[in-house]
Amino acid sequence: MSVTAAKGFTAAGIAAGIKESGNPDLALVVNNGPRRAAAGVFTSNRVKAAPVLWSEQVLTGGEVSAVVLNSGGANACTGPLGFQDTHATAEKAAEVLPGHSAGEIAVASTGLIGLRLPMDKLLPGIERAAAALSEHGGEKAALAIKTTDTVHKTAVAGGEGWSVGGMAKGAGMLAPGLATMLVVLTTDADVEAPALDGALRAATRTTFDRVDSDGCMSTNDTVLLLASGASGITPERAEFEQAVQSVCADLARQLIGDAEGASKDIRIEVINAASEDDAVEVGRSIARNNLLKCAIHGEDPNWGRVLSAIGTTKAAFEPDRLNVAINDVWVCKDGSVGEDRDLVDMRYREVRITADLAAGSESAVIWANDLTAEYVHENSAYSS
Amino acid sequence: MSVTAAKGFTAAGIAAGIKESGNPDLALVVNNGPRRAAAGVFTSNRVKAAPVLWSEQVLTGGEVSAVVLNSGGANACTGPLGFQDTHATAEKAAEVLPGHSAGEIAVASTGLIGLRLPMDKLLPGIERAAAALSEHGGEKAALAIKTTDTVHKTAVAGGEGWSVGGMAKGAGMLAPGLATMLVVLTTDADVEAPALDGALRAATRTTFDRVDSDGCMSTNDTVLLLASGASGITPERAEFEQAVQSVCADLARQLIGDAEGASKDIRIEVINAASEDDAVEVGRSIARNNLLKCAIHGEDPNWGRVLSAIGTTKAAFEPDRLNVAINDVWVCKDGSVGEDRDLVDMRYREVRITADLAAGSESAVIWANDLTAEYVHENSAYSS
Repeated sequence: MSVTAAKGFTAAGIAAGIKESGNPDLALVVNNGPRRAAAGVFTSNRVKAAPVLWSEQVLTGGEVSAVVLNSGGANACTGPLGFQDTHATAEKAAEVLPGHSAGEIAVASTGLIGLRLPMDKLLPGIERAAAALSEHGGEKAALAIKTTDTVHKTAVAGGEGWSVGGMAKGAGMLAPGLATMLVVLTTDADVEAPALDGALRAATRTTFDRVDSDGCMSTNDTVLLLASGASGITPERAEFEQAVQSVCADLARQLIGDAEGASKDIRIEVINAASEDDAVEVGRSIARNNLLKCAIHGEDPNWGRVLSAIGTTKAAFEPDRLNVAINDVWVCKDGSVGEDRDLVDMRYREVRITADLAAGSESAVIWANDLTAEYVHENSAYSS
Repeated sequence: MSVTAAKGFTAAGIAAGIKESGNPDLALVVNNGPRRAAAGVFTSNRVKAAPVLWSEQVLTGGEVSAVVLNSGGANACTGPLGFQDTHATAEKAAEVLPGHSAGEIAVASTGLIGLRLPMDKLLPGIERAAAALSEHGGEKAALAIKTTDTVHKTAVAGGEGWSVGGMAKGAGMLAPGLATMLVVLTTDADVEAPALDGALRAATRTTFDRVDSDGCMSTNDTVLLLASGASGITPERAEFEQAVQSVCADLARQLIGDAEGASKDIRIEVINAASEDDAVEVGRSIARNNLLKCAIHGEDPNWGRVLSAIGTTKAAFEPDRLNVAINDVWVCKDGSVGEDRDLVDMRYREVRITADLAAGSESAVIWANDLTAEYVHENSAYSS
C-alpha cells in the first residue's frame, strides 16, 4: 500500500526529534527508476512556505527523484533563512542518496507557521531515513507525516501490471487551494511528465480542491505524483487518469473523515446550476457557513441557513425556485417550506445536502465538516 | 435615549406571544412629524425576507411614518404567504394608527428562517402596542427586538437643539451586507430624504458593514433612519453626518460586544494598503479565518494564521514585506518572525490586530469576534 505499492519506490519514516513528542516526523520517498517523471500541484495561497517555493522550482524540470517530508514544523513565514533550510534539506538528501542531485529532490513540510525547523535534528534524520529505506516503507512514511491526524491515510488503485499508490496527511486548515495537505502519489506506470501533470490536475480539481473542512487555506499544500516506469507498462490515458482520480478521491474522503474535531462529514451536492463554476461557488458558500456547520453538529436540519448562504453568491438562481434536501428530504421547495423537517434522520456521521438551483444542468460536490466545540478546543491551543 | 431621544417620535415594546418564552417580541416606532422623511439600507443577501422586500418598496417613496418590528421569527423563505403576512402587518398598523397608510409603514422581522409568523398573535399585538405608544417608549422598543442578544443596544448623538437616537439588535449571523441586525435611527432634525440617505449610507459603509462576527450574512438586515423635523433645525450636512456616523459606530461596537458566545472582540486594522477595497478584503479574510478566531480565543498570538489568511486575497502586497502586530507587538516583520510573541498580552476582551500591507496608504478597520465552544453550543441547538 501507500507510496511503495508501485514498483520502483522505496520509503522510510522515522522520528528525527523535530516533534517534541518523539513521534515519527520525517519521511523519505525515493524513486529508483528507471524513470523519474513527476508532476506537482501546490497551494494557491500567495503566502507560500519555503518548501513549496523550492519544490515548485524542482518541478519545472519535470523530474523528481526523491521527496523529503517533515511534520512538526511548516517552515512557512521564515524568510530567506527558512528557504536556506529547505535548500540544505535537499542537499543533505542528495548527499546520502547516491546518484541523486538536490535539484531533483522535492521537500514538503507541515506544522506550525512562523518557526524555523531544528536543522540539527532534521539533517541527521535524513541520513537515518536513507539508511531505513525499504520497499515496504510506505506505511511508515505515511505515519511520519501526520500532524493532528488521528490516523494515517493511504490508498491504491491501478490496472493490469501497474498501480498508483499514495499517502496523505491533513486534518486542519483544510480548504481548497488545496487544503492543508501533503500528498505523495507514486506509480510504476511508464508515463511522461506532461501526461502526469494532466492526470494530476484533473484529479485534484474535483477531489482535494473540493474538500473544504474549515475554509482555511494552507501555506504548505503539496500534492506530488512520481512515476518510476518500473512496470514497463504505459496504460491508456483514460485508464491512468481514472486510477489517479480514484486514489485522490479515496485520500480526500479520508481527510474529511479525520478532520480536526469533526463529528459529521457533509457531502454538499449542488445540482441544476447554470455552470460548474456556479455549482462550486454555491457549494463552497454552504461549506463555509459557520451557522450551518453548527446546526449540522446539532443534528438540526436548519435549511434556512443553507438558503442564506446561497444568497451570498453571484451564481445564477431565482430565490423562489431554490430547493434544498437534507439526507434526501426536500425540506425547502421553491424557496419556502417543503417537506416536514422532522423526517430528516441525522444520526449518522455522513450528512448529505442537495441544493437545487433550478438554473441549468451543471453540478459539483464539495465535502465539508461540522463545527464543533472540539474544533475550537483543538485550535485554540495549537501553538501555545 | 433610543428611538425616542429625538422629538416627534413615540415607541412601544410589548410581549405579543410570538416568542414561546413570553418575552417582549413586538416593537412599534411612530414618527409624529411634522415630517416623515426616511432612508433605509438593507441586506445584500439575494435571499431576502418578506419584510425586507416590503420595506425596500416602502422606502422608494422616501417617507416612513411608522415601523413595526418583531423578534421571534424572521419571516424569511416563507414564500408568497409570508409576504402577505408582512402586508397584513402594515395594514393592521395603518388601521390602528390614525393618519397613517400601509404604504408608508416599514416592517422588520428577526428570528428563525423558514417559519410563518403567528399572525393570530402578531396582529392583536400591534393594536396593544399602538395603545402603549409613549415618548418614553424607546427603551421598551429596544428590549422587544432582542433575539439572542443578552443586552439591548441604544445610542444617541446630536447637536444644539437636535439629536439622533437609535436602537439595534443583532448577535449572530453578523456579517456585512449588513450583519443580522435590525436598527432604527430617529432624528428630529429637519432633513430631506436624499440627505438622510447619503448620511445613512456613508455611516453604514464604515460601521455596520465592517462588523463581521461570524461571516454569515442575514436575510433580514434592515437599518432605517427616520426624520421627524420636530426640532425645526436643519443642521450643517457634515455635522448631521457625523452624528449619524457616531450613533452607528456606537451601536456597531455594541453588537460586536454582545455577539453570540464570543469572549473576545477583535479590532482588525489593515494599514498601508494600495486601496480601501484591498484593506477591506484583507480585513475580512482575517475576520473570517476560523483557525485564527480559535487562536484568539485561546489567547494565542498565532500570527501565521493571519498571514495565511492574507495570502488568500487578491490585494496588492508582497509576502516578504508583510508586517503584523497583535496588541501592538510586531510579531511578524517582513513576512517572517518579528518581536517575541511572549510579549503579547491577550488577557483582555479587546484584541487589536494590525496588518501592514506595505503597498500604499489606504486603511480600514473591521470588527470580528473569536470562535468559541459557546458559539457552537448556542448555534447547534437554535431551531430544535
